[in-house]
Amino acid sequence: MDAHITIALPKGALLKETIIRLQALGIDFSEFLESQNRLLRLQSAPGYQGLLVRAQDVPVYVAYGQAQVGIVGYDVLLEKQLPVAQIADLNFGYCRMSVAVKRDSPYQTVRDLPPHCRVASKFVACARRYFDELGLPVELIPLYGSVELAPLLGMSEAIVDLVSSGRTLKDNGLVEIHTIFESTARLIAHPLSYRLNHPELHDLLTRLQTDI
Amino acid sequence: MDAHITIALPKGALLKETIIRLQALGIDFSEFLESQNRLLRLQSAPGYQGLLVRAQDVPVYVAYGQAQVGIVGYDVLLEKQLPVAQIADLNFGYCRMSVAVKRDSPYQTVRDLPPHCRVASKFVACARRYFDELGLPVELIPLYGSVELAPLLGMSEAIVDLVSSGRTLKDNGLVEIHTIFESTARLIAHPLSYRLNHPELHDLLTRLQTDI
Repeated sequence: MDAHITIALPKGALLKETIIRLQALGIDFSEFLESQNRLLRLQSAPGYQGLLVRAQDVPVYVAYGQAQVGIVGYDVLLEKQLPVAQIADLNFGYCRMSVAVKRDSPYQTVRDLPPHCRVASKFVACARRYFDELGLPVELIPLYGSVELAPLLGMSEAIVDLVSSGRTLKDNGLVEIHTIFESTARLIAHPLSYRLNHPELHDLLTRLQTDI
Repeated sequence: MDAHITIALPKGALLKETIIRLQALGIDFSEFLESQNRLLRLQSAPGYQGLLVRAQDVPVYVAYGQAQVGIVGYDVLLEKQLPVAQIADLNFGYCRMSVAVKRDSPYQTVRDLPPHCRVASKFVACARRYFDELGLPVELIPLYGSVELAPLLGMSEAIVDLVSSGRTLKDNGLVEIHTIFESTARLIAHPLSYRLNHPELHDLLTRLQTDI
């Protein structure tokens, strides 16, 4: 039988729990977790297809209707701003988007940061929105990784980054001075599929929310 | 002695050869290659500091003057368009930026692609520039990874992606229909440092070019 519901699963921190939640509903994509796995697509009876994609790409596949359902962090949803329907908070994968500075920084609150200071981040849209709302003009430095290096080298006064245990910040002598928002895994759906009369999809979304 | 020249090294495909080239000049950052390595900064006698950063971040560190020298792929330079001085082609890390489609696609040349077709890419700026010059309006779908999945699922008619062996394309039933440009590792420098009278920096840049 051909798959008629496609689910986009995020690589990385949320993958394991996502697969466990789906397994509880009889949808088995555990092969994605095998260390040797190179497959990006898997079928699971009855009639489900899983796509293993970068977390940032999950809302893209859902917005374009290539997946009717996706699981992704709220941080990614806020950063990408794509037209997807947010169905439910799945209450796992807790982390927070924070402003952090060097422990010995002269700026120990966000209000202390001087106008036109430099802020490095992988989440440029989230950071831009936050500082715009605060009314503080900052120069954003977009980075792809190891954002904690920027204040250590003196390239930026602060960073905006996702913090889960806080270990990376601590190891690098950085401290959080503000939480912009908290993030958890979210269940999202393609808006059109969601509004159409698609009993299997509605059933899946309901079970994913209630079986928690 | 404090380091007075900082070199930004790219994680990924170009790292090993970059470290070999520097080693030939007596600058040893081989610790970055150890599988257990978690360090992002290393010192090497005499007076050199290495920063291990994402390839996409190398031009950022150099543009902001946190590193006077960097090694990075030409593809990244074209995508990021930052104010750095390109010093030399280091002639390793060959790959090409290509347009690819499904083997059985009705579009077997770039000229066949219909206006407003969808093109998925991690290199949105390069793709945008190419199709603008071609005079073909396309809808770009920005992805972070596994771009080859997009045509397979029917999300895009074509992709623009970096190809080295061609293995990933072949494994996914895709074929290249156009090479946009060829890429190799480039030696870059901070424009101001480069223009200043900085004998050690000029010496390093000269030796990196000639010891090939």
